[in-house]
Amino acid sequence: MNKDRNYIFEMPMKVRDYEVDSEGIVNNAVYLHYLEHTRHEFCEWAGLSFREMHSRGIDPVLSKVTVEYKHPLGLGQRFVSKLGLGRRGPLFVFRQDLFTEDGNPVVRADVEVACIENGRLTRGLPLVEAFGKYLEEK
Amino acid sequence: MNKDRNYIFEMPMKVRDYEVDSEGIVNNAVYLHYLEHTRHEFCEWAGLSFREMHSRGIDPVLSKVTVEYKHPLGLGQRFVSKLGLGRRGPLFVFRQDLFTEDGNPVVRADVEVACIENGRLTRGLPLVEAFGKYLEEK
Amino acid sequence: MNKDRNYIFEMPMKVRDYEVDSEGIVNNAVYLHYLEHTRHEFCEWAGLSFREMHSRGIDPVLSKVTVEYKHPLGLGQRFVSKLGLGRRGPLFVFRQDLFTEDGNPVVRADVEVACIENGRLTRGLPLVEAFGKYLEEK
Amino acid sequence: MNKDRNYIFEMPMKVRDYEVDSEGIVNNAVYLHYLEHTRHEFCEWAGLSFREMHSRGIDPVLSKVTVEYKHPLGLGQRFVSKLGLGRRGPLFVFRQDLFTEDGNPVVRADVEVACIENGRLTRGLPLVEAFGKYLEEK
Repeated sequence: MNKDRNYIFEMPMKVRDYEVDSEGIVNNAVYLHYLEHTRHEFCEWAGLSFREMHSRGIDPVLSKVTVEYKHPLGLGQRFVSKLGLGRRGPLFVFRQDLFTEDGNPVVRADVEVACIENGRLTRGLPLVEAFGKYLEEK
Repeated sequence: MNKDRNYIFEMPMKVRDYEVDSEGIVNNAVYLHYLEHTRHEFCEWAGLSFREMHSRGIDPVLSKVTVEYKHPLGLGQRFVSKLGLGRRGPLFVFRQDLFTEDGNPVVRADVEVACIENGRLTRGLPLVEAFGKYLEEK
Repeated sequence: MNKDRNYIFEMPMKVRDYEVDSEGIVNNAVYLHYLEHTRHEFCEWAGLSFREMHSRGIDPVLSKVTVEYKHPLGLGQRFVSKLGLGRRGPLFVFRQDLFTEDGNPVVRADVEVACIENGRLTRGLPLVEAFGKYLEEK
Repeated sequence: MNKDRNYIFEMPMKVRDYEVDSEGIVNNAVYLHYLEHTRHEFCEWAGLSFREMHSRGIDPVLSKVTVEYKHPLGLGQRFVSKLGLGRRGPLFVFRQDLFTEDGNPVVRADVEVACIENGRLTRGLPLVEAFGKYLEEK
């Protein structure tokens, strides 16, 4: 839908009523929950869950998130969460977009993740190995 | 304010806008966050924080919560959270009430907490020792 | 699974990682979100969503919630949310239980809902009409 | 603390235990709640709350958020939330930073807010009037 984004994973989601605030739209912080849940579902689907990473001494940590809010979601609305994966130096960059069922953009986000192994910042080679085939560029 | 309740701790709080849902009132689950935060602040104030309990191998776990919703809170509203502490058999019972600044009841709750030490249910003697002087009856 | 409960609706759910707290288990307030979401999905499925009720001047409000915590859910765990519906005087009582995939009880809850029509407490006849066939007893 | 930021408002805050996730640190989305709460407290303090704006037909909406995560907060930690206010074209830009009590950076964020009046994007003149003296540049 965004021509510059190569999605490798997508999942349908639906707004839960408690996620909507007094203005009748999904609260701005809740979109970060949607994005996080999508990343974790992707990792599980790709074969290396956050739980497994943690048990191996690998902790992916967020270093930067940029979110553009395009159009708000409301009560009970269904939407689609799409994800692409690239690199910027040692960082992993999740390109994550949400769309309405009609394909209208809801949120466009870039999520930069650093890899901490046993307390030290690394290039995250175990993750490159696990997710290599999904990376946009190598 | 409730004659049958002996409060031993209270703290002022204020609704944060993101806690209010599309009906313009604080979402029902958020009151449990208020109650939990009050319990943890009480424990810290009484000299034994949840972090310390955990590091000593003591894990208080909720076994039952009863909440009566009296009058909803709205955007930006200030309120007071009050807490009493009793026992029911091996359980600790937190009697927790929220009131508006005018003293009107918002929520009336009983929160039963079991004490797990090193994986086993106990009578929570270290907690009785720490909180003994605050217990309603012994 | 609970012999004394006649379920009329159930849905599969899965823990999202951000719902788990520092003790590695789902935070106690989050279960109320699960229960609320299930009620709203039931109402939508039964043909009368909370949005429609509200637009007709009907506002169901929680009056009391009793939750027994049986066994905690953890990271990424799947579970099933089941719902029955009865009455207690003018109130609707949602009997809501959560189970692990193996059928072990997670949470057992009774949720009492009052019906406010145009600002006044009523017996909720429009809801009785909509949900009548699902009510345990009449 | 950040020399390039002119703060006009600050408030002390404290992590609530339910905001911490299974990794023992505040969940990434929760920082957006801290930032939102700070903006709303600032507006109330400056004399024009979000409730009043809404009642006048003015709805500030987020258009973009950029968050850099510097150092995570943990259980029970106190921190300070600081806010500056500038403009970028028709947008208001809240420069919002969180610091530990020792002055170490936790989060550095830019929050762009558009002003919708009666359904149309405007330059937000009522807000310029209300917040003019706090704007970095005019």
